[in-house]
Amino acid sequence: MADTNRRFLLRERPTGRIEPSTFELVESPVPEIGDGEALVRISYISLDPTNRAWIGETPTYLPPVAIGEVMRAGALGRVVASKHPGYPEGALLQGLFGWQEYAVVSDAAPAWTMPEQEGIPDSAWLGVLGQNGLTAYVGMHDIGAPKEGETVVVSAAAGAVGSIAAQIAKIMGARVVGIAGGPEKCAMLTDELGLDAAVDYKAADWRDQLKAATPNGIDVDFENVGGEIMEAVFARLNIRARVALCGLISGYNDAEPPPGPRSFGNLLVNRVKLQGFIVLDHFDRAVEVAGILGGWMAEGRLVARETVIEGFEDLPNSINMLFDGKNTGKLVVRI
Amino acid sequence: MADTNRRFLLRERPTGRIEPSTFELVESPVPEIGDGEALVRISYISLDPTNRAWIGETPTYLPPVAIGEVMRAGALGRVVASKHPGYPEGALLQGLFGWQEYAVVSDAAPAWTMPEQEGIPDSAWLGVLGQNGLTAYVGMHDIGAPKEGETVVVSAAAGAVGSIAAQIAKIMGARVVGIAGGPEKCAMLTDELGLDAAVDYKAADWRDQLKAATPNGIDVDFENVGGEIMEAVFARLNIRARVALCGLISGYNDAEPPPGPRSFGNLLVNRVKLQGFIVLDHFDRAVEVAGILGGWMAEGRLVARETVIEGFEDLPNSINMLFDGKNTGKLVVRI
Repeated sequence: MADTNRRFLLRERPTGRIEPSTFELVESPVPEIGDGEALVRISYISLDPTNRAWIGETPTYLPPVAIGEVMRAGALGRVVASKHPGYPEGALLQGLFGWQEYAVVSDAAPAWTMPEQEGIPDSAWLGVLGQNGLTAYVGMHDIGAPKEGETVVVSAAAGAVGSIAAQIAKIMGARVVGIAGGPEKCAMLTDELGLDAAVDYKAADWRDQLKAATPNGIDVDFENVGGEIMEAVFARLNIRARVALCGLISGYNDAEPPPGPRSFGNLLVNRVKLQGFIVLDHFDRAVEVAGILGGWMAEGRLVARETVIEGFEDLPNSINMLFDGKNTGKLVVRI
Repeated sequence: MADTNRRFLLRERPTGRIEPSTFELVESPVPEIGDGEALVRISYISLDPTNRAWIGETPTYLPPVAIGEVMRAGALGRVVASKHPGYPEGALLQGLFGWQEYAVVSDAAPAWTMPEQEGIPDSAWLGVLGQNGLTAYVGMHDIGAPKEGETVVVSAAAGAVGSIAAQIAKIMGARVVGIAGGPEKCAMLTDELGLDAAVDYKAADWRDQLKAATPNGIDVDFENVGGEIMEAVFARLNIRARVALCGLISGYNDAEPPPGPRSFGNLLVNRVKLQGFIVLDHFDRAVEVAGILGGWMAEGRLVARETVIEGFEDLPNSINMLFDGKNTGKLVVRI
């Protein structure tokens, strides 16, 4: 066990992309634990678009990370020393441990114990069986609620949440169109995940592709992206369509919030229901949903993709992969 | 009985405001009725913001009025000759009779018979006890669904729908803030309708007024207006707020749809539910809701304001009063 704990502290709030100067890498001793505490050695750090929103000026559903604080992030790790009966040595825990190698858990800073299972890689608990899967399930199953034969569009469909959401819609019997960047991701959506069509938003003719892929309009939009893609999708929403508003990643690096969609009026004309949602509100269903998704995985009906990056030092660069569309499925850093 | 039927036909689609050249006034003989038809002499024509949307290029929830067709509008009239047992002479009917003095109803072009009541003026059936009241009730009671003590904002609160919606929210126990143009309308909202505060969107400091009037944020937005007012309201929506999206009048005269609100992201961050709705979908509840609203009127808890314009010839000018904010409550033309 190393005797230092490397940590990334927030040094300055980025106005655009995350830069090397955004964070400062510091070394401190591995924390000593007291009674009622346990020490976690972090093995995987989850990189998610919402991380970027947490270091902006504007409070979101969580307060902004303070300057000088460890960068906030979901992570997974094992208990390596314990003075807390609820967190025994060897337990696999998940929590908002942040960008560091060790974290201390206690009743005041709790974590969740993962129900390890044969054949499920640890990292799955951060992705498909963790917050991403829960996000996808709540958004698609509960909010989008596609009926058999309806047309569903998922933006960022090759991403951690989108790839699960799109497959859930297929399992529910919908016609599913995924939007992703580049021919490789698009091929993955149709060939590997079994979607009915894919739209390459990096292609010049993406608007025509979207139109061709949704000849009967759109009944459900699982929205991860915002911007002009959302604008084009909103314009094709059918009567009584549903929008599960999950993310707006296209604007997260902007200094000013972008204008909303010009097609906003279609939400009125077509009596659309739009529901914003945040996974934090749904943690009470985490075990139930992990069971459902794990079952589909075991049956081979749900494929969980992930992009694993090695190396703690490279976290500030790795997170930009999300905004450059360089990951496929869940993006995690292995330490 | 006059022997001519004056009618306004759509001559050209306006790109901005309605102009004298938009319509053509023509005279034709009063229609002869055949078996299964009844002739209605129109007494009141309803002027509504949605009328403007019906003559744009873009199909809305109804097909655009065709060039050369009678301008579509809700109206009220009495049967003056009948060969249809369902529409006896003297009955008070409501229907999409359009901008004309006489209309023919039949099973193919049906109308609704109004349950006339002592003390209720005829015009109320076009407004508070008609589509406006139903719109207000569905949007506020069912979609906005304010809880006691929550803060509700209603834009165009001095208008036909807004004035009823705001009063319904008061009856439901909410703190209600109305947005309207000019000190007179604002005084009417607080002094006559009993709202808790009014925001004058024509005042330079309307944003400060909105902030001061909603110190605890906004739980329900009954949205009639769109544009920068909606943008400011969205920015103040609380966690789990509801938006009843009823109208976007600020953009109806624009040639291009305006950009959506920059505060759109708040719908995500605060898990907002937004529901577009159109009164046409809720006609099955018209009688029930007219009963509820009529009851509140009889108890003195609900005040129905109207602006009555005399004169058929002036219809093309009168409708612009809606966009200039010159009416208070329901705008009707009496013939």
